[in-house]
Amino acid sequence: MSQTAISPTRAENYPEWYQQVIASAYMAEMSPVRGCMVIKPWGYAIWENIQQELDKRLKATGHVNAYFPLLLPLSMVEKEAKHIEGFAKECAIVTHSGLEDDGKGGLKLTGKLEEPLIIRPTSEAIIGTMYAKWVQSYRDLPILINQWANVMRWEMRTRLFLRTSEFLWQEGHTAHVSNTEAIQETLKILDLYAEFAENILAMPVVKGEKTATERFPGAVNTYCIEAMMQDKKALQAGTSHFLGQNFSTAYNIQFLNPEGQLEKAWTTSWGVSTRLIGGLIMTHSDDDGLVLPPAVAPYHIVMLPIYRNDEEKKLVLEYCHHLQNLLDKILFNNQTVRVHLDDRDLRGGDKNWQWIKKGVPIRVEVGPRDIAKDSVAVSIRTKPPKEKAFINTQEFIHNINNLLDNIQAEIYQRAKNYKDKNTVEINTQEDFKAFFSTEDSGGFVSCWAIDDPEIESYIKPLKVSARCIPLDQDQNAEGKCIFTGQKNQKRIIFAKAY
Amino acid sequence: MSQTAISPTRAENYPEWYQQVIASAYMAEMSPVRGCMVIKPWGYAIWENIQQELDKRLKATGHVNAYFPLLLPLSMVEKEAKHIEGFAKECAIVTHSGLEDDGKGGLKLTGKLEEPLIIRPTSEAIIGTMYAKWVQSYRDLPILINQWANVMRWEMRTRLFLRTSEFLWQEGHTAHVSNTEAIQETLKILDLYAEFAENILAMPVVKGEKTATERFPGAVNTYCIEAMMQDKKALQAGTSHFLGQNFSTAYNIQFLNPEGQLEKAWTTSWGVSTRLIGGLIMTHSDDDGLVLPPAVAPYHIVMLPIYRNDEEKKLVLEYCHHLQNLLDKILFNNQTVRVHLDDRDLRGGDKNWQWIKKGVPIRVEVGPRDIAKDSVAVSIRTKPPKEKAFINTQEFIHNINNLLDNIQAEIYQRAKNYKDKNTVEINTQEDFKAFFSTEDSGGFVSCWAIDDPEIESYIKPLKVSARCIPLDQDQNAEGKCIFTGQKNQKRIIFAKAY
Repeated sequence: MSQTAISPTRAENYPEWYQQVIASAYMAEMSPVRGCMVIKPWGYAIWENIQQELDKRLKATGHVNAYFPLLLPLSMVEKEAKHIEGFAKECAIVTHSGLEDDGKGGLKLTGKLEEPLIIRPTSEAIIGTMYAKWVQSYRDLPILINQWANVMRWEMRTRLFLRTSEFLWQEGHTAHVSNTEAIQETLKILDLYAEFAENILAMPVVKGEKTATERFPGAVNTYCIEAMMQDKKALQAGTSHFLGQNFSTAYNIQFLNPEGQLEKAWTTSWGVSTRLIGGLIMTHSDDDGLVLPPAVAPYHIVMLPIYRNDEEKKLVLEYCHHLQNLLDKILFNNQTVRVHLDDRDLRGGDKNWQWIKKGVPIRVEVGPRDIAKDSVAVSIRTKPPKEKAFINTQEFIHNINNLLDNIQAEIYQRAKNYKDKNTVEINTQEDFKAFFSTEDSGGFVSCWAIDDPEIESYIKPLKVSARCIPLDQDQNAEGKCIFTGQKNQKRIIFAKAY
Repeated sequence: MSQTAISPTRAENYPEWYQQVIASAYMAEMSPVRGCMVIKPWGYAIWENIQQELDKRLKATGHVNAYFPLLLPLSMVEKEAKHIEGFAKECAIVTHSGLEDDGKGGLKLTGKLEEPLIIRPTSEAIIGTMYAKWVQSYRDLPILINQWANVMRWEMRTRLFLRTSEFLWQEGHTAHVSNTEAIQETLKILDLYAEFAENILAMPVVKGEKTATERFPGAVNTYCIEAMMQDKKALQAGTSHFLGQNFSTAYNIQFLNPEGQLEKAWTTSWGVSTRLIGGLIMTHSDDDGLVLPPAVAPYHIVMLPIYRNDEEKKLVLEYCHHLQNLLDKILFNNQTVRVHLDDRDLRGGDKNWQWIKKGVPIRVEVGPRDIAKDSVAVSIRTKPPKEKAFINTQEFIHNINNLLDNIQAEIYQRAKNYKDKNTVEINTQEDFKAFFSTEDSGGFVSCWAIDDPEIESYIKPLKVSARCIPLDQDQNAEGKCIFTGQKNQKRIIFAKAY
């Protein structure tokens, strides 16, 4: 039996495997601050690539970035009743503005605030308040603003990247003249998220609408992309909300239409977060650690020089620098190929395994014998760790773009096959119950079901939730809800979820 | 008398002029959250350019980004006594983690925390705590980490960009094996900040060391760059701190040296913030509004199509798109030239003034008569608003890089001349007092003075502070402190300051 770099393996203990992949890649760790993580440089570099790719897409579709305050007065958040209800239990609240000597060698709180301030769990309240000031006429619309920020939700059970009290995200907030335009925006962003997840994160997703029970507090409709992890659980990877006129009513966002009449604006909000990194890990990684799609890998290629003495070292490093210069001129995904030369004074095997565990797509060994033959020894992260291909250096450089494209496609295809294989249709309540009752079964289950809180009593005991009502459905089909027997037109996807 | 776009003018009321420049360019505004501003899209786009340019420089010098928690347990911050003393009076403090129904239709605080949490005013405490875990051996050093984040300091008197309770910044935190290496890092960053301020923000600065009174709480030495605003006041534009072993002692950052002995690490920290945008505004803007150096301008060029009917509109917009395509291929400062076509249905004069007030370096009018002559009407923000040069289109495109470079250089030179003109040497206490006592005088005053809290009693009544002890001084000179008469080797720069 071959040993793996990560212990336990996925099969042995999936949740623990997940923690070990993160630790072995130096991506993040829990901090001494309750429920809050430190995103370490390797994890943060992945987030920067995610930000860059997503930001490019948001700007290309006419959105601009801005920044709104971290703290929200309680009275401001209370204006939308359902909204505050949804977040009340998990808000960090600021009550004082200073510390002073307590006369006993310690410090005590001072500057009690007249009104408590809530650390934003999301920013509809403050952004709605500002939009109400900015919007007078239909000419001021649409407003298409995005914010990159930290937010806080006081979670009881936390897990690195997937659920932390503080997390990083982008939150878009738009205001429009009409119902139709706002719905179009909501769906445009859903498509943008899905395209981003599939092409950049190599993470296949199902696009759908959330059921009423799973809706964002205060929204009319919530749309989402749902991905499947390697334990067959679902991960909500992004949401896009059509808020109707709920927030424009609460915050008084009104405009004069061309006929001079006052109307309420129609708003949307949408976001993805550092949770995507958790999804990325659980979609692609294996028992040797992280596997990164080239589009978000901090390095595409790591060069590992091999030498036994100073003379060889000089020769090999020169060759590496030469190779690096050539690779620096090549574009992948509209950016320079990211090459790192690891010239640390460390055992070759240790180095090699470090980069395997960090998920770098391509490792290139360069030694005196390779140089003599003008070739390099190329290892690919998605192939067995000891497999090497000896490739002519010119050919390697010439093909690097294809190679990266192929790796990206291969990772996506593997994840897609897994998701497709583990998506089933179930047509009776008995089969549904049986499916989710066995220990290691799981996956996406598509059933006829009504969008009604009533079905919760059937699914909750199984620790299953309605993930979404997929958008891609036969519009003329009709079936009977497997729980209530009622006729209905939509299938719902159910799964256990993060 | 010609009318200006901004009222009042700088001469009439400088502080109010500043507010009006920001309002007229739609850069930012105060929010209903006490002391906190909203950075609007135009202001934020400038911040994004600042981030991009600075981030590139930090990465090129071996730094990597990471992210640490927003909230700091009180006991953690208390570990460095001087540090907590410096920030205690202005900390936002979280004491509860939720809200619940108060039984009277309102909400009350719940989930009282065992220990209060402070919203970071700066992150030495949490980063020091993590470094202590990460550092075991000299091989783990140096650690060169930067963080882009929001921080909070409860300021009593706030002013957009210059002083707000929440602001955005980058904070670098490094740990080293030796005193020498840490000092080198501190000064390397100071140089990097100065180069960035001068070449990108076109803002001339003086590099110097802070006096003991002005030092960062907990630092051994604080270095800074000081810029001069158009009201001759100083603005501290960036600081770099050598922390010695103060924080490694407080947080227990220790390493085994090559000889197997335990040593304390040497640390540094450094930062610049959204305050730079305030500095940018006050250094370059004029009585017609914002003036932006091309290197940080969200748009380098705005194209203003001129037409009277649909036929002309079609012709003109086609020409504009053609021009845009050609300009899109040109690089300035290693990036694509940023061109915006303003095709809004709005009066030409209104449009033109909007872009003047937003500080766009180059405005290009394109009308049917220009097209007939294959020329464009070019206006430069640094020239009188009605001045236009009719330039052959090919020539304009061919020279765009030079033109942007020249504008950048011109803006810098103008600011440098202003600073140089308003920097004086003063050699007696009487002259010093006289200089700072007249209403509209001001500037940088260089004097022989000792670095001792004793001199505060002479300068404080004049509302003057020691800005820095410039690094660039004659090492062999010697003088007598104008306040105390003591012999000393260094001149200090004094000024009124933001």
